[in-house]
Amino acid sequence: MPITHDQQAEIDALRSQTRPTLRAVSDGMEAHLYKAHEVLDHGFVRVIDYMGDDAAIVQAARVSYGAGTKHVSNDEGLIRYLMRHWHSTPFEMCEVKLHVKLPVFVARQWIRHRTANVNEYSARYSILDREFYIPQPDQLAAQSTVNNQGRGAVLQGQEAERVLNMLKSDADRAYDHYESMLSQDGQDGLARELARMNLPANVYTQWYWKVDLHNLLHFLRLRADAHAQYEIRVYADVICKIVADWVPVAYGAFEDYRIGGANLSGKALDCIRRMIRGEEVTQESSAMSRGEWREFEAILKG
Amino acid sequence: MPITHDQQAEIDALRSQTRPTLRAVSDGMEAHLYKAHEVLDHGFVRVIDYMGDDAAIVQAARVSYGAGTKHVSNDEGLIRYLMRHWHSTPFEMCEVKLHVKLPVFVARQWIRHRTANVNEYSARYSILDREFYIPQPDQLAAQSTVNNQGRGAVLQGQEAERVLNMLKSDADRAYDHYESMLSQDGQDGLARELARMNLPANVYTQWYWKVDLHNLLHFLRLRADAHAQYEIRVYADVICKIVADWVPVAYGAFEDYRIGGANLSGKALDCIRRMIRGEEVTQESSAMSRGEWREFEAILKG
Amino acid sequence: MPITHDQQAEIDALRSQTRPTLRAVSDGMEAHLYKAHEVLDHGFVRVIDYMGDDAAIVQAARVSYGAGTKHVSNDEGLIRYLMRHWHSTPFEMCEVKLHVKLPVFVARQWIRHRTANVNEYSARYSILDREFYIPQPDQLAAQSTVNNQGRGAVLQGQEAERVLNMLKSDADRAYDHYESMLSQDGQDGLARELARMNLPANVYTQWYWKVDLHNLLHFLRLRADAHAQYEIRVYADVICKIVADWVPVAYGAFEDYRIGGANLSGKALDCIRRMIRGEEVTQESSAMSRGEWREFEAILKG
Amino acid sequence: MPITHDQQAEIDALRSQTRPTLRAVSDGMEAHLYKAHEVLDHGFVRVIDYMGDDAAIVQAARVSYGAGTKHVSNDEGLIRYLMRHWHSTPFEMCEVKLHVKLPVFVARQWIRHRTANVNEYSARYSILDREFYIPQPDQLAAQSTVNNQGRGAVLQGQEAERVLNMLKSDADRAYDHYESMLSQDGQDGLARELARMNLPANVYTQWYWKVDLHNLLHFLRLRADAHAQYEIRVYADVICKIVADWVPVAYGAFEDYRIGGANLSGKALDCIRRMIRGEEVTQESSAMSRGEWREFEAILKG
Repeated sequence: MPITHDQQAEIDALRSQTRPTLRAVSDGMEAHLYKAHEVLDHGFVRVIDYMGDDAAIVQAARVSYGAGTKHVSNDEGLIRYLMRHWHSTPFEMCEVKLHVKLPVFVARQWIRHRTANVNEYSARYSILDREFYIPQPDQLAAQSTVNNQGRGAVLQGQEAERVLNMLKSDADRAYDHYESMLSQDGQDGLARELARMNLPANVYTQWYWKVDLHNLLHFLRLRADAHAQYEIRVYADVICKIVADWVPVAYGAFEDYRIGGANLSGKALDCIRRMIRGEEVTQESSAMSRGEWREFEAILKG
Repeated sequence: MPITHDQQAEIDALRSQTRPTLRAVSDGMEAHLYKAHEVLDHGFVRVIDYMGDDAAIVQAARVSYGAGTKHVSNDEGLIRYLMRHWHSTPFEMCEVKLHVKLPVFVARQWIRHRTANVNEYSARYSILDREFYIPQPDQLAAQSTVNNQGRGAVLQGQEAERVLNMLKSDADRAYDHYESMLSQDGQDGLARELARMNLPANVYTQWYWKVDLHNLLHFLRLRADAHAQYEIRVYADVICKIVADWVPVAYGAFEDYRIGGANLSGKALDCIRRMIRGEEVTQESSAMSRGEWREFEAILKG
Repeated sequence: MPITHDQQAEIDALRSQTRPTLRAVSDGMEAHLYKAHEVLDHGFVRVIDYMGDDAAIVQAARVSYGAGTKHVSNDEGLIRYLMRHWHSTPFEMCEVKLHVKLPVFVARQWIRHRTANVNEYSARYSILDREFYIPQPDQLAAQSTVNNQGRGAVLQGQEAERVLNMLKSDADRAYDHYESMLSQDGQDGLARELARMNLPANVYTQWYWKVDLHNLLHFLRLRADAHAQYEIRVYADVICKIVADWVPVAYGAFEDYRIGGANLSGKALDCIRRMIRGEEVTQESSAMSRGEWREFEAILKG
Repeated sequence: MPITHDQQAEIDALRSQTRPTLRAVSDGMEAHLYKAHEVLDHGFVRVIDYMGDDAAIVQAARVSYGAGTKHVSNDEGLIRYLMRHWHSTPFEMCEVKLHVKLPVFVARQWIRHRTANVNEYSARYSILDREFYIPQPDQLAAQSTVNNQGRGAVLQGQEAERVLNMLKSDADRAYDHYESMLSQDGQDGLARELARMNLPANVYTQWYWKVDLHNLLHFLRLRADAHAQYEIRVYADVICKIVADWVPVAYGAFEDYRIGGANLSGKALDCIRRMIRGEEVTQESSAMSRGEWREFEAILKG
């Protein structure tokens, strides 16, 4: 279980009393505050704080003295217009702070998104817990034979069992040795900043991650995508639901223009124009490479 | 007057009703929310929103499940330690959004601080108001004779009057012509994106500016400094007071380590060691250039 | 003329002698180095330095020990793949440093692209030249009646003449007064940091601007676009030509996927699928707003 | 050995032939290009490319048309002035691209410096080599008893041997199992993106890292510092030597103002003033906490 009894008590204490504020309040987000949304076997996503709501995007776009919103339909039209034309600055006016617990190999992908603020639990300073990500059997996939960085069919029977056993026993042994190296039981005990090097990349770490809405949506576009590795996608999926509750109008525009949309090349647009005119277009007559054509066909199929 | 009656009514409406939140609340900051702090002759700084407080810095540094604070004295010690050792990430966990009205030549200095989010009032889209910064007579300073980018003595009598007259009449004429170019009175009216080019750099613009506490303190260190141009320093001074109310402990550490402190070179530290041993040190025996020595003496004088 | 005789002599001196280097060299870019490409009436773009070429993108994507390139066709396929899938980091491995002279109102748009390094000529420290952007008659456009931030028809006859006269005479008077305020002819002379506030936004400034290829292409996508203001678009157009000579393969992919391509929403993709099946689709049956539909039709028309 | 025969041949090929360029050339840096500087047991730092030299800092600060340098002594004075007054933008006008091979736990610290461009070798796409960092015996330090994130005495005898054996055998077993999971010997073979999670944090990774000189110096100030973890400090030390050859004047200023200098608080400056006047100052009369006083005494001792 990702959250201990004491931790849950701390969370409950924070959720037990509201205070008055003059700031913009998102009711959808208040319902999420501090709660742990479980992800994978020991991970979670928790909202620690947020700034702004849908109206704050409009207010900033208009550089308003007051709330800045007009009719709801006007506001929605403006937000969709801003999203469609890549006017990113009004979306940067909303901010969210998350507490995330995640395996180290996921954290290493995540941190590549640089425009965010991060405070990670320090394994130089503190001792990590015995918590490792062990995939569910239905996630033990073979290397894809068509995509060099993807997964193929799920492993079966003995092979799956053998892999799981290795992951589990290596994690356990690594942690036993980690503890043993740190132990001062009649010894000096190795420095924590050194002992941590023995822990595998499926050990869990945690951090506070703060990001503005524009950069968060960019993260979600790449990481909630079917091509993202499953273990980061499940975090992105949870955050998508949170964002939908926080800024429903902006999230709706994001779903339409980014998640459900596609970026088409000039060549692809030419093919579409010809197809609408009734022309038969093939890869050969498209001027696209085979890879591009395959991706183009997938977009047309929907 | 920087704020019109209607704008004040919008501000009052926002300040008239609180809503409950589970988030961290800074009472010092709630008192500032939405109010216009006047700066220069037509400018202001308004707090539109904020995230976090002193406790949020501690909470992030500890990657806490709950509030994360312990005894107040512990928290203060930790915040001072973080500031002293340039651990900037916990300070990045607080964020503030300001609405600022300021002359264009000040805005041009301000925007050079890149790690912030900005939404500026668009003079392509909208028409600017007839508002120009005209310095108070005691700010009409001569070019410094010792510092290529500083001010010397205040201009006197006729010279001061002549300068003020030029600034006022040029601003007025430029705005008259701006209006006249835009006018559709029997004409087509020049595009706003073109007409704006006739307005001088003392015309006021406004923007929403959102920044984290670490980067805000860096801005304040450079812009609340005696070497900063007066017209941006007065904005920085107002923001310093706001930050002192928002995160008093962090601001106290900032005052001690950054505003009141100094960065000394290896050569300067050597001189200090010699001076404490009772040795007489001069510029010649200091290995410093004359400029460095002058700055070093100023630091020692305090 | 933007470049004085002395400046041209400095440029010629820099172009007169090559030195050996072991670094990647782009012959297309060597031909541009230091030369002033004139833009508008007094502006220019000059390449001061660059890092990398097409092969450097491939080399970084492969984290190579050596040059990292294989067959030219492989390299081109990889670069197109990276561009298509928004793998931006290999493009960040190329860098360019430009010297740009441009009107202040253009500089204010330009600087909003934050991920770049900038060193601007300081009007606190130095005195600006008497150089102002005065539009060509065919650029004196009326405010658009359909687009709040665009241009409509070109002004004619007397109205055009009147506008040009105001722009020219106001610029001249502002500069006369600027000089007069600075003058120490029997006076103290106003500080330069103050006097500059009298100059209008069409005065020229200049800066060194350094940016990586990924962020440069993002800038070009937005600023070489038909919706960008003409006065910044002409700079973007010149830079496009430079980039095409520097990294022809990357620029080709950029043209196809970004300049010639389009970002379509989920709704737009649905319409396309229906149209290809032969269905008649109208704005009413498209689920798009009128604005979206108009933009969609424009994309289909090409 | 960090570099294979084939890799060395690729490096030699790149070093074997120069090409003419009109760009600024740093002879000190040309001597480093492509060569592998060994760090730790399998790591290295290689310079892949660079932009600019000491003169380029001066040229940008002056926004020059030509080379922009004057007398060498003037240039040095200007560079020292810029460094002393935190004018960072001219230093941002130099850029360097490194190829670094390093243990994952070092990479995780390194990547926290966000203002840089990174292309890491992908363990989703490729298979990692069997290379692990195993500390030298004199680096096997105990946890510090005074500093929660530091090292104390070196481990002795049996304890040291036991730790080394655990590190070595766990790394070997983890890699054996990694290979075995990937194996398609009569099996499907686990996806590489999953198998990598079994590898400990001392496995080596590699990346291309590109950064401007200002941000590089900031990195070096924090990571070449005595409080940095030894395993990242050795990389910083190597890079310091490279930078000293690349931009010797800027590096000299950096050594004096940053590495050899200190940031003193207002309280510390007060104490220094009293000490120079001959007053005896103790921790009690200093208004500093014990931790601050200890650090202050260390600075005075030098």
